[in-house]
Amino acid sequence: MNKIIGLLFISLALLTACKQDKKGEGITPSKAEIILENIHNRKSVRDYIPGKAVTDEELDKLLKAGMAAPSGQNKQPWEILVINEREILDKLAEGLPYGKMLTKAPMAIIVCGDTIKSNYWYLDCSLVSQNILLAAEAMGLGAVWTAAYPYEDRIAVIRSLIDIPAHVTPLNVIPVGHPKGEHQPKEKWDDTKIHRNKW
Amino acid sequence: MNKIIGLLFISLALLTACKQDKKGEGITPSKAEIILENIHNRKSVRDYIPGKAVTDEELDKLLKAGMAAPSGQNKQPWEILVINEREILDKLAEGLPYGKMLTKAPMAIIVCGDTIKSNYWYLDCSLVSQNILLAAEAMGLGAVWTAAYPYEDRIAVIRSLIDIPAHVTPLNVIPVGHPKGEHQPKEKWDDTKIHRNKW
Repeated sequence: MNKIIGLLFISLALLTACKQDKKGEGITPSKAEIILENIHNRKSVRDYIPGKAVTDEELDKLLKAGMAAPSGQNKQPWEILVINEREILDKLAEGLPYGKMLTKAPMAIIVCGDTIKSNYWYLDCSLVSQNILLAAEAMGLGAVWTAAYPYEDRIAVIRSLIDIPAHVTPLNVIPVGHPKGEHQPKEKWDDTKIHRNKW
Repeated sequence: MNKIIGLLFISLALLTACKQDKKGEGITPSKAEIILENIHNRKSVRDYIPGKAVTDEELDKLLKAGMAAPSGQNKQPWEILVINEREILDKLAEGLPYGKMLTKAPMAIIVCGDTIKSNYWYLDCSLVSQNILLAAEAMGLGAVWTAAYPYEDRIAVIRSLIDIPAHVTPLNVIPVGHPKGEHQPKEKWDDTKIHRNKW
Protein backbone atom coordinates (compact mmCIF):
# COMPACT_ATOMS: atom_id res chain seq x y z
CA MET A 1 0.00 0.00 0.00
CA ASN A 2 2.88 2.36 0.85
CA LYS A 3 4.40 1.57 -2.54
CA ILE A 4 1.17 2.55 -4.28
CA ILE A 5 1.07 5.87 -2.43
CA GLY A 6 4.74 6.41 -3.27
CA LEU A 7 4.15 5.79 -6.97
CA LEU A 8 1.06 7.97 -6.94
CA PHE A 9 3.18 10.76 -5.45
CA ILE A 10 5.86 10.32 -8.14
CA SER A 11 3.20 10.36 -10.88
CA LEU A 12 1.70 13.58 -9.55
CA ALA A 13 5.11 15.19 -9.22
CA LEU A 14 5.94 14.30 -12.84
CA LEU A 15 2.57 15.53 -14.05
CA THR A 16 3.10 18.84 -12.24
CA ALA A 17 6.61 19.20 -13.71
CA CYS A 18 5.23 18.54 -17.20
CA LYS A 19 2.46 21.10 -16.77
CA GLN A 20 4.93 23.72 -15.58
CA ASP A 21 7.02 23.03 -18.66
CA LYS A 22 4.01 23.56 -20.89
CA LYS A 23 3.04 26.71 -19.00
CA GLY A 24 6.58 27.96 -19.60
CA GLU A 25 6.17 27.29 -23.32
CA GLY A 26 2.84 29.08 -23.36
CA ILE A 27 4.39 32.40 -22.44
CA THR A 28 7.31 31.96 -24.86
CA PRO A 29 7.20 34.93 -27.29
CA SER A 30 6.35 34.23 -30.93
CA LYS A 31 9.02 34.53 -33.62
CA ALA A 32 7.54 37.88 -34.69
CA GLU A 33 7.72 39.15 -31.10
CA ILE A 34 11.36 38.06 -30.79
CA ILE A 35 12.26 39.85 -34.05
CA LEU A 36 10.37 43.05 -33.16
CA GLU A 37 11.89 43.04 -29.66
CA ASN A 38 15.37 42.85 -31.20
CA ILE A 39 14.59 45.84 -33.44
CA HIS A 40 13.48 47.80 -30.36
CA ASN A 41 16.42 46.63 -28.22
CA ARG A 42 19.09 47.66 -30.71
CA LYS A 43 21.12 50.45 -29.21
CA SER A 44 24.36 52.30 -29.84
CA VAL A 45 27.07 50.61 -27.77
CA ARG A 46 30.30 52.60 -27.39
CA ASP A 47 32.08 50.67 -24.62
CA TYR A 48 33.40 47.14 -24.98
CA ILE A 49 35.01 44.54 -22.71
CA PRO A 50 38.75 45.01 -23.36
CA GLY A 51 40.47 42.10 -25.04
CA LYS A 52 37.28 40.10 -25.64
CA ALA A 53 37.34 39.28 -29.36
CA VAL A 54 34.48 38.85 -31.79
CA THR A 55 34.83 35.26 -33.03
CA ASP A 56 35.21 34.38 -36.71
CA GLU A 57 31.81 32.69 -36.53
CA GLU A 58 30.17 35.82 -35.11
CA LEU A 59 31.86 38.01 -37.72
CA ASP A 60 30.71 35.68 -40.48
CA LYS A 61 27.10 36.00 -39.28
CA LEU A 62 27.36 39.79 -39.15
CA LEU A 63 28.72 39.99 -42.70
CA LYS A 64 26.18 37.54 -44.10
CA ALA A 65 23.32 39.46 -42.45
CA GLY A 66 24.74 42.64 -43.98
CA MET A 67 24.78 41.27 -47.52
CA ALA A 68 21.16 40.11 -47.22
CA ALA A 69 20.09 43.76 -47.50
CA PRO A 70 17.75 44.97 -50.24
CA SER A 71 19.49 46.62 -53.17
CA GLY A 72 18.13 49.10 -55.72
CA GLN A 73 17.95 47.36 -59.12
CA ASN A 74 19.87 44.54 -57.39
CA LYS A 75 23.18 46.37 -58.03
CA GLN A 76 24.61 45.31 -54.64
CA PRO A 77 27.15 48.15 -54.70
CA TRP A 78 28.65 47.30 -51.31
CA GLU A 79 32.21 46.39 -50.33
CA ILE A 80 33.06 45.61 -46.71
CA LEU A 81 36.30 46.29 -44.88
CA VAL A 82 36.98 44.30 -41.71
CA ILE A 83 39.58 45.86 -39.43
CA ASN A 84 41.01 43.93 -36.49
CA GLU A 85 44.61 45.13 -36.50
CA ARG A 86 45.12 47.09 -33.29
CA GLU A 87 47.32 49.70 -34.96
CA ILE A 88 44.72 50.58 -37.61
CA LEU A 89 41.90 50.68 -35.06
CA ASP A 90 43.89 53.03 -32.83
CA LYS A 91 44.77 55.31 -35.75
CA LEU A 92 41.11 55.44 -36.77
CA ALA A 93 40.25 56.35 -33.16
CA GLU A 94 42.83 59.12 -33.27
CA GLY A 95 41.75 60.53 -36.61
CA LEU A 96 37.95 60.31 -36.46
CA PRO A 97 36.21 62.98 -34.37
CA TYR A 98 33.67 60.54 -32.88
CA GLY A 99 35.82 57.41 -33.06
CA LYS A 100 37.43 57.31 -29.60
CA MET A 101 35.65 54.06 -28.70
CA LEU A 102 37.68 52.30 -31.40
CA THR A 103 40.60 52.08 -28.95
CA LYS A 104 38.49 49.62 -26.91
CA ALA A 105 36.82 47.72 -29.75
CA PRO A 106 38.39 44.41 -30.83
CA MET A 107 37.30 45.09 -34.40
CA ALA A 108 35.39 47.36 -36.74
CA ILE A 109 33.40 46.92 -39.92
CA ILE A 110 33.64 49.68 -42.53
CA VAL A 111 30.73 49.51 -44.99
CA CYS A 112 31.78 51.04 -48.31
CA GLY A 113 29.96 51.73 -51.55
CA ASP A 114 31.00 51.36 -55.17
CA THR A 115 30.10 54.76 -56.62
CA ILE A 116 30.37 53.46 -60.20
CA LYS A 117 27.98 50.56 -59.68
CA SER A 118 25.29 52.78 -58.19
CA ASN A 119 24.50 56.49 -57.88
CA TYR A 120 22.65 55.79 -54.62
CA TRP A 121 25.12 53.33 -53.11
CA TYR A 122 24.74 55.12 -49.74
CA LEU A 123 21.11 53.97 -49.47
CA ASP A 124 21.91 50.30 -50.16
CA CYS A 125 24.92 50.48 -47.85
CA SER A 126 22.78 51.97 -45.07
CA LEU A 127 20.57 48.89 -45.24
CA VAL A 128 23.63 46.62 -45.07
CA SER A 129 24.70 48.55 -41.98
CA GLN A 130 21.32 48.29 -40.27
CA ASN A 131 21.30 44.52 -40.84
CA ILE A 132 24.75 44.34 -39.21
CA LEU A 133 23.61 46.43 -36.22
CA LEU A 134 20.51 44.26 -35.75
CA ALA A 135 22.52 41.04 -36.09
CA ALA A 136 25.02 42.32 -33.50
CA GLU A 137 22.16 43.03 -31.07
CA ALA A 138 20.75 39.55 -31.71
CA MET A 139 24.08 37.94 -30.83
CA GLY A 140 24.61 39.98 -27.66
CA LEU A 141 27.34 42.07 -29.29
CA GLY A 142 27.55 45.85 -29.08
CA ALA A 143 28.03 48.11 -32.08
CA VAL A 144 27.45 51.66 -33.24
CA TRP A 145 27.33 53.49 -36.58
CA THR A 146 29.96 56.22 -36.62
CA ALA A 147 29.63 58.34 -39.74
CA ALA A 148 32.22 58.67 -42.49
CA TYR A 149 30.15 59.79 -45.53
CA PRO A 150 29.18 62.53 -46.24
CA TYR A 151 32.12 64.09 -44.32
CA GLU A 152 35.11 64.55 -46.64
CA ASP A 153 37.58 64.94 -43.74
CA ARG A 154 36.53 61.66 -42.12
CA ILE A 155 36.62 59.82 -45.44
CA ALA A 156 40.16 61.18 -45.94
CA VAL A 157 41.25 59.79 -42.53
CA ILE A 158 40.07 56.31 -43.52
CA ARG A 159 41.66 56.56 -46.98
CA SER A 160 44.99 57.61 -45.38
CA LEU A 161 45.06 54.30 -43.45
CA ILE A 162 43.61 51.87 -46.00
CA ASP A 163 44.24 52.00 -49.72
CA ILE A 164 40.57 52.05 -50.78
CA PRO A 165 40.06 52.48 -54.57
CA ALA A 166 39.05 56.02 -55.55
CA HIS A 167 35.61 54.95 -56.81
CA VAL A 168 34.78 53.30 -53.48
CA THR A 169 33.60 55.49 -50.58
CA PRO A 170 33.37 54.47 -46.92
CA LEU A 171 29.91 55.15 -45.49
CA ASN A 172 30.66 54.48 -41.83
CA VAL A 173 32.86 52.75 -39.30
CA ILE A 174 31.05 50.26 -37.08
CA PRO A 175 33.11 49.17 -34.06
CA VAL A 176 31.92 45.80 -32.72
CA GLY A 177 32.69 44.21 -29.38
CA HIS A 178 31.17 42.70 -26.28
CA PRO A 179 29.20 45.41 -24.44
CA LYS A 180 30.72 46.69 -21.21
CA GLY A 181 28.19 48.04 -18.70
CA GLU A 182 24.51 48.70 -19.24
CA HIS A 183 23.20 50.21 -22.45
CA GLN A 184 19.58 51.18 -23.03
CA PRO A 185 17.80 51.81 -26.33
CA LYS A 186 16.36 55.29 -26.81
CA GLU A 187 12.59 55.70 -26.88
CA LYS A 188 11.84 57.45 -30.19
CA TRP A 189 8.17 56.79 -30.86
CA ASP A 190 6.34 60.00 -31.80
CA ASP A 191 2.87 59.64 -33.29
CA THR A 192 2.80 63.27 -34.42
CA LYS A 193 5.19 62.15 -37.16
CA ILE A 194 2.54 59.86 -38.67
CA HIS A 195 0.39 61.40 -41.42
CA ARG A 196 -2.60 59.52 -42.80
CA ASN A 197 -3.50 60.07 -46.48
CA LYS A 198 -2.68 63.77 -46.15
CA TRP A 199 -0.27 66.00 -44.27
CA MET B 1 0.24 -5.80 -7.61
CA ASN B 2 -1.55 -4.97 -10.85
CA LYS B 3 -2.14 -1.47 -9.50
CA ILE B 4 1.58 -1.07 -8.82
CA ILE B 5 2.43 -2.15 -12.39
CA GLY B 6 -0.24 0.22 -13.71
CA LEU B 7 1.16 3.17 -11.79
CA LEU B 8 4.70 2.30 -12.82
CA PHE B 9 3.55 2.32 -16.44
CA ILE B 10 1.89 5.72 -16.01
CA SER B 11 5.03 7.10 -14.34
CA LEU B 12 7.24 5.88 -17.16
CA ALA B 13 4.85 7.27 -19.78
CA LEU B 14 4.89 10.69 -18.10
CA LEU B 15 8.66 10.61 -17.75
CA THR B 16 8.99 9.81 -21.47
CA ALA B 17 6.58 12.61 -22.38
CA CYS B 18 8.58 15.05 -20.29
CA LYS B 19 11.88 13.99 -21.89
CA GLN B 20 10.42 14.38 -25.38
CA ASP B 21 9.31 17.90 -24.44
CA LYS B 22 12.82 18.78 -23.36
CA LYS B 23 14.29 17.18 -26.49
CA GLY B 24 11.85 19.31 -28.52
CA GLU B 25 13.12 22.44 -26.79
CA GLY B 26 16.69 21.47 -27.60
CA ILE B 27 16.14 21.79 -31.36
CA THR B 28 14.09 25.01 -31.08
CA PRO B 29 16.15 27.75 -32.77
CA SER B 30 17.68 30.34 -30.45
CA LYS B 31 16.46 33.93 -30.46
CA ALA B 32 19.57 34.94 -32.42
CA GLU B 33 18.87 32.27 -35.04
CA ILE B 34 15.25 33.44 -35.39
CA ILE B 35 16.37 37.05 -35.87
CA LEU B 36 19.13 36.19 -38.36
CA GLU B 37 16.76 33.92 -40.28
CA ASN B 38 14.29 36.80 -40.60
CA ILE B 39 17.03 39.07 -41.97
CA HIS B 40 17.88 36.41 -44.56
CA ASN B 41 14.23 35.65 -45.39
CA ARG B 42 13.30 39.27 -46.10
CA LYS B 43 12.45 39.62 -49.75
CA SER B 44 10.82 42.11 -52.09
CA VAL B 45 7.13 41.20 -52.39
CA ARG B 46 5.29 42.87 -55.28
CA ASP B 47 2.05 40.86 -55.35
CA TYR B 48 -0.59 40.93 -52.62
CA ILE B 49 -3.84 39.12 -51.86
CA PRO B 50 -6.51 41.52 -53.19
CA GLY B 51 -8.75 43.04 -50.55
CA LYS B 52 -6.88 41.60 -47.59
CA ALA B 53 -6.11 44.58 -45.35
CA VAL B 54 -3.17 45.21 -43.07
CA THR B 55 -4.73 45.57 -39.60
CA ASP B 56 -4.29 48.67 -37.44
CA GLU B 57 -2.31 46.54 -34.98
CA GLU B 58 0.03 45.32 -37.72
CA LEU B 59 0.50 48.86 -39.06
CA ASP B 60 1.25 50.10 -35.54
CA LYS B 61 3.98 47.48 -35.16
CA LEU B 62 5.49 48.41 -38.54
CA LEU B 63 5.59 52.11 -37.66
CA LYS B 64 7.01 51.54 -34.17
CA ALA B 65 9.72 49.25 -35.58
CA GLY B 66 10.51 51.99 -38.11
CA MET B 67 10.97 54.70 -35.50
CA ALA B 68 13.32 52.48 -33.46
CA ALA B 69 15.99 53.10 -36.11
CA PRO B 70 19.36 54.63 -35.27
CA SER B 71 19.64 58.34 -36.00
CA GLY B 72 22.72 60.47 -36.60
CA GLN B 73 23.14 62.87 -33.65
CA ASN B 74 19.70 61.61 -32.57
CA LYS B 75 18.00 64.12 -34.91
CA GLN B 76 15.26 61.64 -35.90
CA PRO B 77 14.51 63.57 -39.10
CA TRP B 78 11.80 61.17 -40.27
CA GLU B 79 8.12 61.77 -41.04
CA ILE B 80 5.90 58.91 -42.15
CA LEU B 81 2.96 59.02 -44.54
CA VAL B 82 0.46 56.16 -44.37
CA ILE B 83 -1.69 55.80 -47.49
CA ASN B 84 -4.70 53.49 -47.52
CA GLU B 85 -7.12 55.48 -49.69
CA ARG B 86 -7.66 53.46 -52.84
CA GLU B 87 -7.71 56.53 -55.09
CA ILE B 88 -4.32 57.80 -53.90
CA LEU B 89 -2.75 54.33 -54.15
CA ASP B 90 -4.02 53.93 -57.71
CA LYS B 91 -2.76 57.37 -58.73
CA LEU B 92 0.65 56.57 -57.23
CA ALA B 93 0.64 53.32 -59.24
CA GLU B 94 -0.17 55.30 -62.39
CA GLY B 95 2.45 57.98 -61.84
CA LEU B 96 5.42 56.04 -60.48
CA PRO B 97 7.45 54.08 -63.10
CA TYR B 98 7.95 51.04 -60.83
CA GLY B 99 4.76 51.43 -58.79
CA LYS B 100 2.29 49.21 -60.65
CA MET B 101 1.97 46.82 -57.67
CA LEU B 102 0.33 49.65 -55.71
CA THR B 103 -2.97 48.87 -57.47
CA LYS B 104 -3.03 45.56 -55.56
CA ALA B 105 -1.63 46.73 -52.22
CA PRO B 106 -4.11 47.58 -49.45
CA MET B 107 -1.78 50.28 -48.20
CA ALA B 108 1.60 51.93 -48.55
CA ILE B 109 4.06 53.61 -46.20
CA ILE B 110 5.98 56.60 -47.54
CA VAL B 111 9.08 57.31 -45.46
CA CYS B 112 9.97 60.98 -45.70
CA GLY B 113 12.83 63.07 -44.36
CA ASP B 114 12.97 66.55 -42.86
CA THR B 115 15.76 68.19 -44.87
CA ILE B 116 16.07 71.04 -42.34
CA LYS B 117 16.52 68.77 -39.32
CA SER B 118 19.30 66.80 -40.99
CA ASN B 119 21.57 67.06 -44.03
CA TYR B 120 21.75 63.27 -44.21
CA TRP B 121 18.08 62.52 -43.52
CA TYR B 122 18.15 59.92 -46.34
CA LEU B 123 20.54 57.72 -44.31
CA ASP B 124 18.39 57.78 -41.15
CA CYS B 125 15.24 57.26 -43.22
CA SER B 126 16.82 54.27 -44.97
CA LEU B 127 17.27 52.64 -41.57
CA VAL B 128 13.63 53.37 -40.69
CA SER B 129 12.66 51.70 -43.97
CA GLN B 130 14.79 48.62 -43.38
CA ASN B 131 13.23 48.16 -39.92
CA ILE B 132 9.79 48.35 -41.55
CA LEU B 133 10.74 45.78 -44.21
CA LEU B 134 12.14 43.41 -41.56
CA ALA B 135 9.10 43.86 -39.32
CA ALA B 136 6.79 43.12 -42.29
CA GLU B 137 8.71 39.89 -42.99
CA ALA B 138 8.47 38.94 -39.30
CA MET B 139 4.68 39.36 -39.37
CA GLY B 140 4.18 37.40 -42.59
CA LEU B 141 3.44 40.55 -44.57
CA GLY B 142 4.93 41.39 -47.95
CA ALA B 143 6.54 44.71 -48.77
CA VAL B 144 9.06 46.29 -51.13
CA TRP B 145 11.09 49.52 -51.27
CA THR B 146 10.18 51.44 -54.41
CA ALA B 147 12.43 54.46 -54.80
CA ALA B 148 11.32 58.09 -54.76
CA TYR B 149 14.52 59.98 -53.80
CA PRO B 150 16.84 60.81 -55.53
CA TYR B 151 14.52 60.93 -58.59
CA GLU B 152 13.00 64.39 -58.96
CA ASP B 153 10.23 63.17 -61.30
CA ARG B 154 9.05 60.51 -58.85
CA ILE B 155 9.18 62.92 -55.92
CA ALA B 156 7.04 65.33 -58.00
CA VAL B 157 4.41 62.61 -58.59
CA ILE B 158 4.07 62.06 -54.84
CA ARG B 159 3.97 65.80 -54.11
CA SER B 160 1.22 66.23 -56.72
CA LEU B 161 -1.01 63.83 -54.74
CA ILE B 162 -0.14 64.74 -51.15
CA ASP B 163 0.60 68.23 -49.91
CA ILE B 164 3.98 67.44 -48.33
CA PRO B 165 5.81 70.52 -46.96
CA ALA B 166 8.61 71.74 -49.24
CA HIS B 167 11.35 70.96 -46.70
CA VAL B 168 10.20 67.33 -46.43
CA THR B 169 11.27 64.85 -49.13
CA PRO B 170 9.83 61.38 -49.71
CA LEU B 171 12.57 58.72 -49.76
CA ASN B 172 10.47 55.80 -50.98
CA VAL B 173 7.02 54.24 -51.26
CA ILE B 174 6.66 50.89 -49.48
CA PRO B 175 3.49 49.02 -50.48
CA VAL B 176 2.49 46.51 -47.78
CA GLY B 177 0.03 43.63 -48.06
CA HIS B 178 -0.40 39.92 -47.60
CA PRO B 179 1.90 38.11 -50.02
CA LYS B 180 0.23 36.36 -52.95
CA GLY B 181 2.14 33.38 -54.32
CA GLU B 182 5.67 32.28 -53.48
CA HIS B 183 8.46 34.79 -53.01
CA GLN B 184 12.08 33.83 -52.44
CA PRO B 185 14.89 35.95 -51.03
CA LYS B 186 17.86 36.55 -53.36
CA GLU B 187 21.19 34.95 -52.47
CA LYS B 188 23.66 37.85 -52.36
CA TRP B 189 26.60 36.55 -50.33
CA ASP B 190 29.89 37.27 -52.10
CA ASP B 191 33.07 36.85 -50.07
CA THR B 192 35.18 38.64 -52.68
CA LYS B 193 33.57 41.83 -51.33
CA ILE B 194 35.15 41.32 -47.91
CA HIS B 195 38.53 43.02 -47.40
CA ARG B 196 40.56 42.34 -44.25
CA ASN B 197 42.73 45.18 -42.90
CA LYS B 198 43.69 46.20 -46.44
CA TRP B 199 42.15 46.28 -49.92
